[in-house]
Parts: sequence; C-alpha cells; structure tokens
Amino acid sequence: MATLLDIGVSAAINILSALAFLLAFAILRLQPFNDRVYFPKWYLKGLRSSPSSNGAFVRKFVNLDYTSYLKILAWIPAALQMPEPELIEHAGLDSAVYLRIYLLGLKIFVPIAFLGFAILVPVNYTNNTLESMKVEYSDVDKLSISNIPKGSDRFWTHLVMAYAFTFWTCFVLLKEYEKVASMRLHFLASERRRPDQFTVLVRNVPPDPDESISELVEHFFLVNHPEHYLTHQIVYDANNLSKVVKKKKNMKNWLDFYQLRHERNPSKRPIRKTGFLGLCGEKVDAIDYYTTEIAKLSKEEVEERDRIKGQNSIIPAAFVSFRTRWGAAVCAQTQQTRNPTIWLAEWAPEPRDVYWNNLAVPFVHLTVRRLIIAVALFFLIFFFMVPIAFVQSLANIEGIEKAVPFLRPLIERKLIKSFIQGFLPGIALKIFLILLPTILMLMSKFEGFVALSILERKSASKYYLFLLVNVFLGNIITGTAFQQLNTFIHQSVNDFPRIIGVAIPMKASFFITFVMVDGWAGVAGEILRLKPLIIYHLRNFFLVKTEKDREEAMEPGSFDFGSSEPQLQLYFLLGLAYAVVTPFLLPYILIFFGLAYLVFRHQVINVYNQEYESAAAFWPDVHGRIICALIISQVLLLGLLSTKEAANSTPFLIALPILTIWFNKFCKSRYESAFKKYPLQEAMMKDTLERIKEPNLDLKNFLLSAYIHPVFKEMDEDDSVSCFDKDGEFENVLVPTKRSSRRNTPVPSKYNDSASPSLSDIGREQQL
Amino acid sequence: MATLLDIGVSAAINILSALAFLLAFAILRLQPFNDRVYFPKWYLKGLRSSPSSNGAFVRKFVNLDYTSYLKILAWIPAALQMPEPELIEHAGLDSAVYLRIYLLGLKIFVPIAFLGFAILVPVNYTNNTLESMKVEYSDVDKLSISNIPKGSDRFWTHLVMAYAFTFWTCFVLLKEYEKVASMRLHFLASERRRPDQFTVLVRNVPPDPDESISELVEHFFLVNHPEHYLTHQIVYDANNLSKVVKKKKNMKNWLDFYQLRHERNPSKRPIRKTGFLGLCGEKVDAIDYYTTEIAKLSKEEVEERDRIKGQNSIIPAAFVSFRTRWGAAVCAQTQQTRNPTIWLAEWAPEPRDVYWNNLAVPFVHLTVRRLIIAVALFFLIFFFMVPIAFVQSLANIEGIEKAVPFLRPLIERKLIKSFIQGFLPGIALKIFLILLPTILMLMSKFEGFVALSILERKSASKYYLFLLVNVFLGNIITGTAFQQLNTFIHQSVNDFPRIIGVAIPMKASFFITFVMVDGWAGVAGEILRLKPLIIYHLRNFFLVKTEKDREEAMEPGSFDFGSSEPQLQLYFLLGLAYAVVTPFLLPYILIFFGLAYLVFRHQVINVYNQEYESAAAFWPDVHGRIICALIISQVLLLGLLSTKEAANSTPFLIALPILTIWFNKFCKSRYESAFKKYPLQEAMMKDTLERIKEPNLDLKNFLLSAYIHPVFKEMDEDDSVSCFDKDGEFENVLVPTKRSSRRNTPVPSKYNDSASPSLSDIGREQQL
Repeated sequence: MATLLDIGVSAAINILSALAFLLAFAILRLQPFNDRVYFPKWYLKGLRSSPSSNGAFVRKFVNLDYTSYLKILAWIPAALQMPEPELIEHAGLDSAVYLRIYLLGLKIFVPIAFLGFAILVPVNYTNNTLESMKVEYSDVDKLSISNIPKGSDRFWTHLVMAYAFTFWTCFVLLKEYEKVASMRLHFLASERRRPDQFTVLVRNVPPDPDESISELVEHFFLVNHPEHYLTHQIVYDANNLSKVVKKKKNMKNWLDFYQLRHERNPSKRPIRKTGFLGLCGEKVDAIDYYTTEIAKLSKEEVEERDRIKGQNSIIPAAFVSFRTRWGAAVCAQTQQTRNPTIWLAEWAPEPRDVYWNNLAVPFVHLTVRRLIIAVALFFLIFFFMVPIAFVQSLANIEGIEKAVPFLRPLIERKLIKSFIQGFLPGIALKIFLILLPTILMLMSKFEGFVALSILERKSASKYYLFLLVNVFLGNIITGTAFQQLNTFIHQSVNDFPRIIGVAIPMKASFFITFVMVDGWAGVAGEILRLKPLIIYHLRNFFLVKTEKDREEAMEPGSFDFGSSEPQLQLYFLLGLAYAVVTPFLLPYILIFFGLAYLVFRHQVINVYNQEYESAAAFWPDVHGRIICALIISQVLLLGLLSTKEAANSTPFLIALPILTIWFNKFCKSRYESAFKKYPLQEAMMKDTLERIKEPNLDLKNFLLSAYIHPVFKEMDEDDSVSCFDKDGEFENVLVPTKRSSRRNTPVPSKYNDSASPSLSDIGREQQL
Repeated sequence: MATLLDIGVSAAINILSALAFLLAFAILRLQPFNDRVYFPKWYLKGLRSSPSSNGAFVRKFVNLDYTSYLKILAWIPAALQMPEPELIEHAGLDSAVYLRIYLLGLKIFVPIAFLGFAILVPVNYTNNTLESMKVEYSDVDKLSISNIPKGSDRFWTHLVMAYAFTFWTCFVLLKEYEKVASMRLHFLASERRRPDQFTVLVRNVPPDPDESISELVEHFFLVNHPEHYLTHQIVYDANNLSKVVKKKKNMKNWLDFYQLRHERNPSKRPIRKTGFLGLCGEKVDAIDYYTTEIAKLSKEEVEERDRIKGQNSIIPAAFVSFRTRWGAAVCAQTQQTRNPTIWLAEWAPEPRDVYWNNLAVPFVHLTVRRLIIAVALFFLIFFFMVPIAFVQSLANIEGIEKAVPFLRPLIERKLIKSFIQGFLPGIALKIFLILLPTILMLMSKFEGFVALSILERKSASKYYLFLLVNVFLGNIITGTAFQQLNTFIHQSVNDFPRIIGVAIPMKASFFITFVMVDGWAGVAGEILRLKPLIIYHLRNFFLVKTEKDREEAMEPGSFDFGSSEPQLQLYFLLGLAYAVVTPFLLPYILIFFGLAYLVFRHQVINVYNQEYESAAAFWPDVHGRIICALIISQVLLLGLLSTKEAANSTPFLIALPILTIWFNKFCKSRYESAFKKYPLQEAMMKDTLERIKEPNLDLKNFLLSAYIHPVFKEMDEDDSVSCFDKDGEFENVLVPTKRSSRRNTPVPSKYNDSASPSLSDIGREQQL
C-alpha cells in the first residue's frame, strides 16, 4: 500500500527522468549534426537543407551559438503555434486527427478531474471508515470510495457523478465524432484530384476459359457500367520480384559499407565469411563477394521481370477506374453479380496504402483464415504465458551450461549466476512484448486485408484486447489471463464485475506509478528519439556517400497506429474506471495527455512522415474503444457498489451501460457512414466542379500508371512502366505526364522498400 | 414420469382427435355451401365460381353424391401433386419457400432419427444404470442418455453423433440456403415488370424554405442521378382519411345487416341503442341512424380529401422512380448525402407491402424508439407474468362479488365457484398468449419499419425469443422466466448449460406430449378452418347481398409469418436439443413436419392468399434461427456431458459451437446478399432485354400511380387519382393505362382495409 509520500517520491523520480529526457532533447536538437534526426519532416518537404558548409568545420557538428541554448524551451510554443488547417496541410489529416485523441483526453478528463476533486474527494475524505476498521490503508485510499462506510447514503453522490461523467464523456465524444467526420468530408472534398477517387479495387475476378483477366474485366465493366467505365489496371504478382529487389538493395548497402571501409583504409581489403550472418563459413574478399552477389541478383531480377510479363503472373484482381467519381462511388457501394464472392468491388486504397501481397487471396480462404486468426488470438491473449514459461524453463542456468559447457566457469560465479537467474525470465517476456505488435500485424496480414491502413487498424484492435485483458484486468486481479479465465468460468456472471470492482480501488497507487513510468517517461523518451539518433549516425558513418543516401538514412518514422493507439486507449480506460472510484488518479492522466499532446504535436510537425493517408478512417475505432472503456468502467462500478450494500442507489446504475450502448449505436448510424461510404452528392459536386474547371482533362492519362506495384516504379521507371502498357493504345504517352501523375501518389509504402517520397522530389526540384 | 404406456395413450388420444379434425374437414369440404371457405384461392383466381343454381335447392348446400365421400382422402395426393414451379406461379415464392421449411425439417430429421435409433438407442438401452440406481424412472429415460453410467466411454458415441448431426444439419442448411437464394434470384429475374423494380423509397427529405417537397425531391435526383432519374410520387398523410373510410365501411355493413333484417321482417323497423357497443343509451331507428351516420362520414371524407390536397399533408418521403432497374439498384445501395440521416434511400417495398403509417418517422425518433422497444421486449419476456398475476389477483371471487354484487347468489354456488376459481387464472394467461403476436406486431410497428414483410419478420424474431425463454427454457427449468433470470444471475457461467442440460432428458416425455397436442392437433385444426367457417356463414347470412359481398366475406387468410414461423422453429429446437439426448422424441417431430407439410401445402394451393410478395426475404431469419437452435443444443449437451464425468470426450465438444458460428458467418457472407441487395449485373441484364423487347415502352405512365395510398384507389378511382396528378403534366393520362398498371400491383394490404384483390378482378373479367 503506497502512501502519498511513496507516490510523491515516485513522481519526483519520474518527473526528473522525464525532465532529463527533455533537457537532453533540447540540447541535442540544437546540434547541426543531429538536424536530420530532429527535423526530417522539413528535409522531406524540401524546406530545410543540410547545414551550409561555409563556416568552421566544427560548427557543422556542434552548435556554438550560446543564445540558442537560452531558448531551450522554444520548441514548446513552436509546437503549439501551427494552426490545425496548416497542420493538416503539412502532415495530413491522419496525424492531425491522431493528435485530437490526446486533446480529447484533456477535454474529457479536465472537467471530470475538477468535479472529482471538488465533490468526490471531500465526500470520501470526511469519513473515517478505514480508521475505524483498523485495516492497513494508504493515504490514497482515504481519498477513494473505500473510505465510505457500507450502506451509506453518500453513495448517491457517486451515482450522480457516474451519470454526470458518462453524460459529459458521451457529449464530448459526440461533438468530436461530428467534428472529425466533417473534417474528413471536408478533407476529401477539398483534396486535389487523386487516382483513388476514381478507382475501385475489384478482387476475385472469376476464371474464364476464353478471355484473359484483362479482357474479362474490361468486358464486364463495359457491360455493367457502360457510361462510367474508363480503364483498368491489372495486377501482377510481383512479390518475388520485390523480394529480390529488397535483397539486392541490402547487398548494395553492405557493398557500400565495405567500399567506404576500403577507401578509409586502402591497405587492407575487407573480408567476410559466407555463412550464417557472416559469422561462420569460408572467408572471402567482401567487395568481390558482394559485387558478384549483386550481379547475380540483377540477373535474377531481369528474369523475374520477364516472367512477370507472361500471363501466368497476373492475379485475378484489378484496379478499375471510372470516368467520374460518381461512377466509382456507385461501383464501390454496390454488389456486382449474383454471387457475392466474386467481382468483389471496394474503394481502392490510396496507391501508397495498398498491401500488394494480399490482393490475390480467394474468398473462401479469407473466411477460413479469419476463423483461424480468431482462435489464435484467443489463445495468444489467454495462454501467451505458456510458451514464455517454457522458454524460461529452458533458459535456466543448467540449460545454458549444457548448451555451452565452456561458459560454465563464468556462469558459476555467484554474481553472474544470480544476475542471469534474475534477468533471464524477464527478458523472455520483454522480448515477447516487444515482438507482440509485429506478431499481431502478421496475424492481420494473414487475414488478408488489402490496405496498410486497415492492417494497422485491425492490429490495433487485437492489441487493445491484449492490453485490456493482460495489463488492465491482469494487474487488477493478479495472475495470468489464463488463471483469470479459469477463475471466471467457475464464477457467477454477476461476480465478474464484483471481483474486479472490489479490487479496483486497491490498485490505484499501482496504476498511478504505471502512468508515471509508462506514460510520462515514455512520452519524454519518444521526443528524444534515441534509437533513430543512433541508427542515423551509424548509417551516416558507414553507408552514406551521396546526398540521396543521407536522405534515406533519415528515419522519420510515423505514428505506429497499431501499437500506440491501444496503449493510449489504456489511459482512457484507467481514467474512466477510476474517475468515480479514486479521482486522485486523474491528474496523473491529465499530465500524460498534456505532455503527450505537446510532444507528439512537435513530432508531427518536425519529424514524422506518414506513409499513407487514410483521411482519419480510424476514428470509428477510437470512438468505439472509448465507449468500450466507458461501459467497462460502469460495470465495474456496479460491481463495486453492489458489495457496498448501497442497495438504494445501485439499481439506478443499470441504466447507464444500456444508455451508453444505445448512444454508441446512435453515433454509429449517424456518423460512421462518413468513414465507410462516399456520398453520391459529394462525388457529383466534385465531378461537376472539375468538368467546369478543366473541361479538357485527360483522365485516362492521369490514371495510367497510378496503381503499379511500387517495385516497378522504383528505379528504371520508364523501362518498367512501358512493360505494363500492354494495351498498346497507351504507348504514346509522354514521360512528363507520367511524372505529374506520380506527384499525386507521393510515397510508396515502406513495406515495398522505396523511401523516396515525391514531396521530397518536389522539394529537391525547388532547391535546384 | 411418463411411461411408454402413458405416452401411447396420449398419442392415441391426439391421433384420434387429429383424425377427427381431418375427417370433419374431409366431409365439410365436400359440401357446396362451404366451398368458398375451403377453396377461396380458386375463387380469387377466378378459376372457380359459385355452385350452379340449376338443380335441386338442397344440392346447393349439401353434397348428396355418395361417390365423392368414398374419396375423402383425395385431397392428400391433390395437395402433393402440384410441382414447385407451378406452385410458385400459383401462390407466390413466399408460400413456396415457406413450405420448404417443413420439408427442411424432414430433410434434417429423417437421417438423424434413423441414426439415432440405429446407434444411440441400443447404446443407451444396453445399460442398467437407472435400475441399479434404484430411482424412479420412466421407459423413455431408459432409451435416453440418462441410462449411461457416469464416466462411461460410451459417451464417445454421443460425441461422434453430435458431430455427425451438426455436420448433416449444416450441410442441409447450406444446400437449402443456396437453393432458396437461387430461387429468389430466378424469381426476381423472371418476374414481370413491376413498379418496385424501378423505385426507391426516399425518407427524411430535409425541409427546405424555398421549395416544396416535390420540387426538392425532383431537383435533388435530377442533380445527383441525372441520367437515371425518371419521376417520383410524393406521399400524402392519409392516415386520418383511411380511418374515416374504415369507419364508413363498418357503418355500411351494419346498415346492410339491418336492411336485410328489415326485408325479411318488413313489419318491424329494427332498432338500436346509440351508446357504447349498442348496449345502452337512447333507442333509435337503426336504418335511419346508420344512414345519417354514413352521410356524416361521407361529408367528413370529402373534407379530409380536400385537406389532403393542401401542402400540409405531404410527408417528407417520396417514391422515386428511375429509368432503369440499374439506376434504382444504384440509388438503393448508395448513400446520397454527407448526412446519413437525411435522404435515406432504400428499395421500395412492393406497393401492397408498404406500411404507410410509418413513412414519416424522423431518424432520431427511430433510434429512440428502438431503444424503448428493446427495453420493453426484455421486460415483456422476463416479467410478463407480473401483470398477469396482478389481473389474476383482481379477478378472484371476492373481486367479482364486489364489482357486481347482484351476481353474488349465483357465484356463491359451489360448482360455479370452483369453476371460476379454477378457470379464471388460466384465462388471463390464455388471453395474453393469444394477444401476444398482436402486441409484438404493435411493438414492431412502433419501431418504425416501412414494409409489412419487415414488420412480420421483426415480430417473428421477438416471438421466437419469447418462446425460447418461456416455452423451451421455462418448461425445462420450471418457474417463470424472471425466477430463472434471478437464478442465473447468481449462477456461474458454466453452470447455465449444466443446469439446463441436466434437466433436458427428464423433460423428454413432457415435450413429446407437447408436440402431439400443440403440433399434431394444431395442424389438423388448421385444415378444418373452424373460425373462418363460422365467420363466413355468419356474414353470408347477415351481410351478403351481392356476389361482391360474398367475395369479401371469404377470409382466405395467409401464413402469419410473425407467429407461425417461431412456433415452427420451436420444433427444430426440440428436435436438435433431443437428437443426441433422447432420440425417442424424433419420430413425433417427424410426424409433425410431415403432417404440417401436407396440410399447409393443401392450404397454400386451395385457401391462402398472400397479402404481399417479399420473394422469400425471410429466409436468412429462418436459417439464423435454426443455427441458433443448433448452438443451443450443442451448449446444452456440453453442460449435460460435463456432469456425467465424461472428462475424456467433453472438451472435444467445444469446437462444435465455434465451427457452427463460423459456418453461419460463412453462409451470411456467401448468400445473405442475395436477400439484401440487387446485383447490378442482374439489373443490367433485365434492362437490356426489356429495351430490346419493348423499345417504345412508356415507363412513366407505367409507374404513374403505382405508389398511391390504397385509400385513394379504393372506390372512386379516377376521381381520387386526378387529385394527385398535381404536376399537371400527367393529367392527360388515359384511364385504361391506369388499369393496366393496377393489374401489376394486385392486392392492397389488409392494413389499409381493402379486400378486393386484383387477381380476383382479373378472374371476374374472365367470367364476364
């Protein structure tokens, strides 16, 4: 049981470490040689270039201007100054709306915290139940609901507050949903012409003995959308090719590395081993080795490109483009044929957003895969400790001694032995937790979704479930999720909320510490960007030869929606669950939201470079999870109060979850369609405007190479594109037109290994 | 505990009563004066006319031809002979598919019963657990799973059988879903041109200060569907008018009644009282009274018609028609504007199927109403006994004596007293159960659905829930649903299926009796049509003056989907739940399905006249409820086996519900869209064919008065229609064209009080 003093000490430590991070950041960001780590966004936009080389050599690396050190907090107002419309213009709607989640946290919890401290804390504090019970209790408990005697009429206060908090949260959520929906619609309406506005992704084109897939697609849409169909692009199975290209690029990096080393030390040819990870096997001359490897891969690449030109590598999917946005909106929202498992039409994702590997999965596979993943997810959430415990049991001292007997003398030393024994079990768990988002992403990919944005959203849902069960519930009722499951199966339904509800107030001080360690320090660590800082400097030293290399060495990163959003949701859950029970927790959450908002706004402006733009398509998920947290908190409060013999007030709480579920349904029907469908009126408006503004627009040319697998776009662009213009009629296209079309589909996604965003192209052009 | 003998006796009684009903039917149907009761469908189709009047007077009423009595079973082959395509042509797809539910029951349960008797019964019977336990047991129990000792390996048989039954059921369901979906699509594709194929119902047209609703609708669709919009019909709020018309018609009936009485006995003018139900108040001359009342109502009707012509009675909804089916399919499947709560477009129901009263409900009301109904349904299901108990407590002897003291001497007699005491409580419950489908239909209407077919489907879902909880579970664990709920809240989750599962085998003999009483006798009673028989003869005697009156006196009736389908589903549930546990129950269910199939096929061919045609839109509900029954049966088996200490086999059962749920999801994604959407390819095909066949079709004329409130169509058709052609341009329409369009929208629904179906019109025309 932590006392206020304990928490104070913990807070002090965490505040100090957070401040240390922030201070380190404030100093490091001023050093010119870190400039590309802390301001990559501006480099990518072309609005900032490498520090000018005129000046002392040392000034290229260290900032000697002492005045700038006086303004080390200058980044804070700078981060807050940019108005939202400019932010959307600068970083996209996804980032701007993501920041609104933190703001939403503040909007929800500031009034709740105020009310909680003004009303609930005095009501709780002016009892002496805990003292009279003579149990061990902490100061935090004295401020919480635990301090109210059983059956007291004071519980009415908590009931009224629960209603007030719920109504306030719902009100804010409603306003926010409305705002985000209108932002999204406005964003879509004011967007430039983009290929995905005219394009529909059609999957599961049925096989036809007489026609090729391309002919079949064309005929089908000419018949069924005669006035609207414009053109289509077939999809080639380039998964192999992109693997080869990726490997080649990796080899090239190593070649660069060894060449640089050789240049710096020309007397000694670098050497490497051919075996696993270069650790074993024959020793060879590294430069020669990589040169021949690259030559081999280049040959393989050419062969692969040739193979792709054949009919066999066309997959039964196509990007079908229409003359108007109206036509595309119609096709994306309707069913094409009797059989709903073929000719599946949906909005094409942005070209950057396409996850090419999944375009060919047949319908029946999809349903089977989803079943498999649902079962796997269940086991992952409830039994994830089993394999870890197994690894832990293997990775004990005896096991290591058996595996590597020559280390025995070392291991047997007492200090090292106890270190290993204390450390190893933890490390297995830690590695698992670090890998978890990747595992969940792989599971989502296996499920067969076709856009990166959807993959991230699905991973986020899975991760949230994991956190909910294993972090939130797991810490409240100590024990693994499996043990909990076992307990709960043998408990009555209305015991669930009771058991958890009773445990809730006792865990307040634990979660306060959790918020400080995980939240405050984590956020402050985020702004420091320690990992990208190190990686950038390593790359810069070992690999960078040209300005372009340096650009690729920057890792701007982005919001990792799949793992960061669920973690963020945990704070909403904590805040709502403790709002009535222990309002003392709320300020810690408020500080987290405030700090995170500040830090991430800075990152969005200066660092992050989104891979794709989904126009805030994730908002229904965010909204849904906050509603979910609200319902969980209400049910737990119900459970807690039912043990407090507050028989008068408890029944009135039952209406709360029902009303909340209804509110969610209402929001869904009212706003969700803005995120799923594209209204015909909007489409028609944009079409009409465009027809008036640009009556002679050549849309076919504009759409020509929008949806080409990024591997073909990468280097030898003219070459590879021409191999795709198999329809012949497109072959007289001029190169400049293609470039302009490319400018509209900026950055190929990182999953396909191309890191030259078009925005930076534009930037570079401006510099020239 | 019923012995086999008890069940045999009960079976004999029920078989005899069923046979009595069937015999009565066989004789009554041969009497010419009952002809219109037992063959109304043929009258409505115009293929049968009243018995010829040449012949002896008595032969008009009684069939004296003894040879026909020798063939009293002739109706059975006759009912089975008509092939399905002809049946669809004759009675519509709804009826044909409804009959397939009974057939589905046979398909599922014949092999299951066979396997059950071949394998499970011997396995169960060859134990002597029950004997050795020296408990009281019935013969039925000896054939059931109860006779297997705890922890026996024989439970593996039941496990394997559970899998076999589930796979077989799913297989049959899959095939059936496929078949029904293709029947539906074929039916829609081969249908004649119908107004609803071109029409979309648009609700929640937003108010506009400058334009009338009609102008607004026209402009909106001209802008957003420029190439497809054809015309629209605004909807008038004619609820008041239809009430007046209904009242007038009622008065007319009474006038006819008194006039007939006066004709038969011209010496005495009939007299009635003006008060409540004609029971109290001033005495007046009945013919004069009704004549003046009708005159009053006629005036009111004219006023009402005038009022409707004004702008105020236009409701913000419209039936928008398109040039092509493609255009309508597009509009019905897409979202129109940013705000998903206005301009709500959906397929227009068939004109007969429209529920006019709900067209004007605004969006927010709908969501609130649904919440209210959900809560109300919960209370209705779990607390329906409370008001009944209240009424029962009021309606006791003392209460009656207080209310009507003059009856005291009568009531106090011993025989009557005990009769009342025994009878009254039952009657309150019985009245409630009879009223229940009506109550549920009112609840569905309150929810705001716009088509009768949807209303019936929603009522059916509610009724199924009620039956599931109060009949199935309620009889297994004796006690009211509320008591059960209370028990269950205090039980562990895995105790639910255990408690019910254990009780299941003990209730087998009760449910066997239930199947015989409710199923066998009920079905046999259905074919006798006692109520319509009496009502027809009463009307015929008191009201019928013309041939048209006689036609209206027939009450062909129809499948009442809202109450009959859920009752039917109860048998699926019983069959599946007992298939593994007590296979001895299955033959009784088989007999029910066989008999019902026979009887209802006869009724569909000879009697029923469907009010609307939804093209089997109810099938997903039927499928879903059988799946639901399957899952319930699996979970209950799981609970039962878990108490039998069959630890080896029980865990293998967990996969069954998961696989079943997945199977349901698969079916949903694979076939459900055939029932919800209209594929563009189909629409385009039909459009193209039509363009070729009838290049000069005047579609606008065809659609002109398709969607007019039936009250305007009823009598003075030309008059009332012209008041609707407010657009002026339609006013030069010829009457014959209107008639032909009317022929395509046959019967106005009974909810709007018009009983002259167009098929009978056609029939009469043929007779002329």
